[in-house]
Amino acid sequence: MSDLDSILSVIENPARRQILEALVREPHYPLQLSKELGISQQAVVKHLKVLEENGLVESYTEKSDLKGPQRRKYYPIQTFSVVVDMGPNLFSAELISREQTAEDLVEKEGSQDVSELRDRMKKIEDELDMLNNRREELLAEKEKLLQSARETTSSIPDYMVRKIIHEFILHPDCSMNDIAKMISVRDDIVLDSIREWMSDW
Amino acid sequence: MSDLDSILSVIENPARRQILEALVREPHYPLQLSKELGISQQAVVKHLKVLEENGLVESYTEKSDLKGPQRRKYYPIQTFSVVVDMGPNLFSAELISREQTAEDLVEKEGSQDVSELRDRMKKIEDELDMLNNRREELLAEKEKLLQSARETTSSIPDYMVRKIIHEFILHPDCSMNDIAKMISVRDDIVLDSIREWMSDW
Repeated sequence: MSDLDSILSVIENPARRQILEALVREPHYPLQLSKELGISQQAVVKHLKVLEENGLVESYTEKSDLKGPQRRKYYPIQTFSVVVDMGPNLFSAELISREQTAEDLVEKEGSQDVSELRDRMKKIEDELDMLNNRREELLAEKEKLLQSARETTSSIPDYMVRKIIHEFILHPDCSMNDIAKMISVRDDIVLDSIREWMSDW
Repeated sequence: MSDLDSILSVIENPARRQILEALVREPHYPLQLSKELGISQQAVVKHLKVLEENGLVESYTEKSDLKGPQRRKYYPIQTFSVVVDMGPNLFSAELISREQTAEDLVEKEGSQDVSELRDRMKKIEDELDMLNNRREELLAEKEKLLQSARETTSSIPDYMVRKIIHEFILHPDCSMNDIAKMISVRDDIVLDSIREWMSDW
């Protein structure tokens, strides 16, 4: 599995995103991608190399029709989501790797009716939209809460203590030890900060 | 509002992500970020310049304590989410701009109890986790559906027609004209392709 850094560095390039969009439809060879996307074949080959080196695609050789030359075809191999949330009080960038593998998809349903597939897609998209809307509402709530947290910590004179209290509110599932490790501060400093400021309100 | 390209090019850099994480906690000046993140002040200034030029942060001048020098403090100004989904049959990269502005956050609740803020955060995080889990299930369903779509279109000899049918299934809210525009193909070609392959199954 690639890490967040390498995935972001690969997909920040718009041409590489276009290549991935084509490859998830069907495997392509470089000349085909070059024609399809209006990018020089040289550039396509360079982008495919970056994608392959970062573990996002693999390739195989396919003999083209009749006596034509052999072609190297590329296809995507990873399953993940990257979610970046940004706001005045909130920044997180997360890589979520989904479990699904190519094998999960092997049980073939065979050819399906196009309009039926479109109807099923509509239901999935509608629910995804609903989830996204609810997610946005929750992020707005989280922003407000973090704004309150900021106002609450702003009266703390020490920078590090403000940071500790902030992290303590931001990560409700983390113990004091987790937070000490996360921000590389000694356990007892975290403990003292939290004890002092939680009893004082 | 910045676009997806510029946002991805800014946040693909891990140091810039660390800077944003610090700035959402409170405004920082370059020397402070340099100490906090263990990066040279020169590098911090360069990264802040990139963030500012791409519209992710702004700055103001603050007189430091007593006779100290003036300091330029940076704070984040944008509210958005970036969601990238990748799988064997699925690639999408989307910028979602949330409506929330700094003004929304102005109605101050004043100082709050730290443990109460942590409890409220826990509830928000729990629901966000639940939404993420459901989202992953739906993406797994979408993968399977797109796998069926691929098997269905694989018998179509013409590349462009395969692409048209694929897009037609992938975007159930798009009319034929929308799809023609999306993939820069003449309306009548899209219409003919869809008519032919939807009646034939």
